[in-house]
Amino acid sequence: MPEYYFHRFLEFSILRNLPRRKLEPFDTPKPIRSVKMTQGRPDRSDQSDRTDPTDHPFPAASLTPGVDSGLDGPLMASQSASASSPTMESIVALCRRRGFIFQSSEIYGGANGFFDYGPLGAELRRNIKEAWWKDFVQRRDDIVGLDSSIIHHPKTWEASGHVDNFTDPLVDCKVSKQRFRADQLFFAPVVVNGETIGYVSGLESDRTESELQAAAEKLKRKKAVQGELEPLRVRDFTAATPDEIPLVPSPATGEPGSLTPPRSFNMMFETHIGALRDASSVAYLRPETAQGIFINFRNVVDSGRVKIPFGIAQIGKAFRNEINPRNFIFRSREFEQMEIEYFIAPDDDWQARHREWIDSGVEWLESIGIPRQAISEYEHPREKLSHYSKGTVDLMFAFPFGVQELWGFAARGDYDLTQHQKFSGKPMEIFDEASKSKFIPHVIEPSVGVDRILLAALCSAYAEEEVEGEKRTVLRLSPRIAPVKVAVFPLVKNKPELVAAADTLYRTLQRKYAAFWDTSGAIGRRYRRMDEIGTPFCVTVDFQTLEDGTFTLRERDSMEQKRIRDEELFRLLEEAVD
Amino acid sequence: MPEYYFHRFLEFSILRNLPRRKLEPFDTPKPIRSVKMTQGRPDRSDQSDRTDPTDHPFPAASLTPGVDSGLDGPLMASQSASASSPTMESIVALCRRRGFIFQSSEIYGGANGFFDYGPLGAELRRNIKEAWWKDFVQRRDDIVGLDSSIIHHPKTWEASGHVDNFTDPLVDCKVSKQRFRADQLFFAPVVVNGETIGYVSGLESDRTESELQAAAEKLKRKKAVQGELEPLRVRDFTAATPDEIPLVPSPATGEPGSLTPPRSFNMMFETHIGALRDASSVAYLRPETAQGIFINFRNVVDSGRVKIPFGIAQIGKAFRNEINPRNFIFRSREFEQMEIEYFIAPDDDWQARHREWIDSGVEWLESIGIPRQAISEYEHPREKLSHYSKGTVDLMFAFPFGVQELWGFAARGDYDLTQHQKFSGKPMEIFDEASKSKFIPHVIEPSVGVDRILLAALCSAYAEEEVEGEKRTVLRLSPRIAPVKVAVFPLVKNKPELVAAADTLYRTLQRKYAAFWDTSGAIGRRYRRMDEIGTPFCVTVDFQTLEDGTFTLRERDSMEQKRIRDEELFRLLEEAVD
Repeated sequence: MPEYYFHRFLEFSILRNLPRRKLEPFDTPKPIRSVKMTQGRPDRSDQSDRTDPTDHPFPAASLTPGVDSGLDGPLMASQSASASSPTMESIVALCRRRGFIFQSSEIYGGANGFFDYGPLGAELRRNIKEAWWKDFVQRRDDIVGLDSSIIHHPKTWEASGHVDNFTDPLVDCKVSKQRFRADQLFFAPVVVNGETIGYVSGLESDRTESELQAAAEKLKRKKAVQGELEPLRVRDFTAATPDEIPLVPSPATGEPGSLTPPRSFNMMFETHIGALRDASSVAYLRPETAQGIFINFRNVVDSGRVKIPFGIAQIGKAFRNEINPRNFIFRSREFEQMEIEYFIAPDDDWQARHREWIDSGVEWLESIGIPRQAISEYEHPREKLSHYSKGTVDLMFAFPFGVQELWGFAARGDYDLTQHQKFSGKPMEIFDEASKSKFIPHVIEPSVGVDRILLAALCSAYAEEEVEGEKRTVLRLSPRIAPVKVAVFPLVKNKPELVAAADTLYRTLQRKYAAFWDTSGAIGRRYRRMDEIGTPFCVTVDFQTLEDGTFTLRERDSMEQKRIRDEELFRLLEEAVD
Repeated sequence: MPEYYFHRFLEFSILRNLPRRKLEPFDTPKPIRSVKMTQGRPDRSDQSDRTDPTDHPFPAASLTPGVDSGLDGPLMASQSASASSPTMESIVALCRRRGFIFQSSEIYGGANGFFDYGPLGAELRRNIKEAWWKDFVQRRDDIVGLDSSIIHHPKTWEASGHVDNFTDPLVDCKVSKQRFRADQLFFAPVVVNGETIGYVSGLESDRTESELQAAAEKLKRKKAVQGELEPLRVRDFTAATPDEIPLVPSPATGEPGSLTPPRSFNMMFETHIGALRDASSVAYLRPETAQGIFINFRNVVDSGRVKIPFGIAQIGKAFRNEINPRNFIFRSREFEQMEIEYFIAPDDDWQARHREWIDSGVEWLESIGIPRQAISEYEHPREKLSHYSKGTVDLMFAFPFGVQELWGFAARGDYDLTQHQKFSGKPMEIFDEASKSKFIPHVIEPSVGVDRILLAALCSAYAEEEVEGEKRTVLRLSPRIAPVKVAVFPLVKNKPELVAAADTLYRTLQRKYAAFWDTSGAIGRRYRRMDEIGTPFCVTVDFQTLEDGTFTLRERDSMEQKRIRDEELFRLLEEAVD
């Protein structure tokens, strides 16, 4: 690990991890970049930090020509990815072209870090959530659902530690009015022959080190100092001493003296309830759905008949005022989480439970078409965990912009319930009939974002192929989550009996499945349009249909066609979709 | 109509209706109270305004003993409703007892106007949304879905008129620090023999008039004035002249001189995006989902193959900083909407389209168990409509606290798209192939709240009956939306072969339906528990099952039992649930 990563981790553990659990599940610091660097995979996506360092939430329309505002930074960068794997650019282009995902408020120049899901994206989202709920709530006896409000009593966030610790260190450049995350701003003293002749700085990227080196050499030449340049000791700005702060050049101006000391910036969006705007009316948009579960723990226990071990699951929106939202829908300011708090007895074998959950996460990802080989595990080093945390493992996915966290599995002990007991004065103990004992349960927390799953599913599914000399773009989405399950085509549109037969089939299918009707263009073109949006099955009603009642079924992935009857079609769909 | 209602409407039309369309669909002013008064149905629920006039968002725990904080005002009041119809109190009690709905952040004393849905409530919500989406999106060819972000670019709300006009008139009492809605604060000069001897005031309730009368007589006695008290001319405080304002007593203190002139209070929740907190970073939580549709109109048209007439549908959270949230989940600060914008050609017969939509609303309500006879229509008077509005009809539901708006159907012309075209500079015209013409479409907007539908469904379903000398509480929820579709009981729990047979059936059912397993207590008690949460079917596995493979099916509403085989059961469920 290069020295500056070590420093960075040190800083994270000092500044952020007590009780700042909230690096998980969306902000976990982990050696993404060192992983990428050792693999030699260039990743310039983080240069997005540089393209819009002021991070204005609503870029002026003139700054964002066209409609892709807010996206260009991270997305153009990934053009450098290898040709065999999909690029972010092509995925984003497809999302936009076919109505999966748009930048929010595009007609007004965009809202940075917010996204709107179009017709197909909305269905894909729904299907992902539905599959998750079905598998983790409906089909399990030990998990119940919950749907808590986005705005809670603010005491919730005092108890959870978010008010005090859900912060990022922020630095202002007083001259340029630009704003940086201190832990993404790197600097080093330039030492020649044991004497410091100045400082160099730069924003985090996979080239930070080489850029700082070049800057140091330039400085040495400029100052016309003779002698040996000592190896740079790169640190991030959170580690700058008060004496050093005025000496570090601003990345915006290149001149020292304009950077402020790092200050804590709370990432919760704040608002006021009622007509009065003062400290007593402050409320926050939840930065995670998990706390809604903990504050309802007592309610669920008292109104249901849950027995330990059991889980409470919730799907819902959460909000984080990220300084640098980036990588398309990967890190946005408004996102949706699917979280479970799985409560176990304190003397239960938490390691075994933890492992079960991680495994079922992998299995579930596979069930919606995210292949096991794209998933890796990352175990958070013991020394970086909060004092109460027993262990956290993340499932990582190989996105085009790097291997990044997809799903966090945290063993959190009884920390949250104990905190809420302390802050509310309400007992969080339960009496366990089986063991005849009373305790505050411990918890395993599988936590995943809908948007990240959706992006991973798109990345896994996207392919460009050459078929009969033409390019075919296909989304090999699992039929479980594909926005359209089946398309029905009458072979030609000017034969009423053909169209009528196709219509009858379409109406029947549509009762149960998201179905699509298309009469325009050659059949081959209609297949391609369906390939591009991931429709697994196309059914063509042709002249033979009128004779023997069979249809042509065309399968997306194999592109094979076969004659099929409607009972067979219904069975096939039922099996594939569910 | 009593005079003060007339004044109230006048005020509404002056203060609120240009272009304040946003009284619809959640705040439509309509003669609720006069309806209730002419029907002679006492409704004290609005006294909630009086029990918490300061409207502190987070009442101190000490003020709210027990766990029902925030609910007691409106809910205790409805005890006075007639015995034959369900009371809000009994519905709320059931919701809490069985885990449908809790006050948000209850352990911290509650957050006023926010609610959490427990395990059964979360399922009920999901089922309502799913049924709506299925019928209005999946099963129609002319409607596509959308899922836009909660936070938009703030220009959206300038274009829509919300920044300027989505306001309530607010009055402060400088002495008590209490805060009132000016249109809920009524006053009158007390005139004796043509001379004004003072003013009386009171907060809105169905007894305002009689209370003001009593106060006027008291004032006359106190001032020892002889002569005839003239009939009171009651107005609301928005109609007070500058001269009158210092003369009207504060409802909090009974003394004049402390009320401020009404000021506009914007009901959008405000927040800031990014680290900078100034005017340039202000953003709002959407007060409706509709605008997310309008700002994506161009995106949907360009990426899909929609043809006029067509609709865009969206389900999602919206937020309104209500001064007086009330009537349980009926008027809350965070709620979920299901909205459609149905775009039609300018020369289309909008009245016919409007009527179609209203009728399909009634039909849909019936399909989820809200009976037609509980629904009435309210047509907004022409003179109260905004200049651009062509007509608005609300479907009203007879809630225990009065006949109130459930579903609004507004014909809005091309107002919204034209506004966004103006503010964004982006063209909103489309080219219609069929008519070979170019135009900005007009729109019909069916808009309904998930929470209101859920409350109407609960109110329609709730019944208390006497069965064999015992009270039976039953929720006759439609199987389409019932949180649990089927329960499976082994007759006794100590016969392994019985339990195994029941378990097999349960596992099979659970793959497809929300199923419940219960082994504890007498069968009769288990049926009652299921009745109370609205489970339409219970299946008991008994000794005969082991002989001939049949089960006892018990139907919730008729309480009839019959022997049934599993194929029959599956068919029955499929038909009932969908």
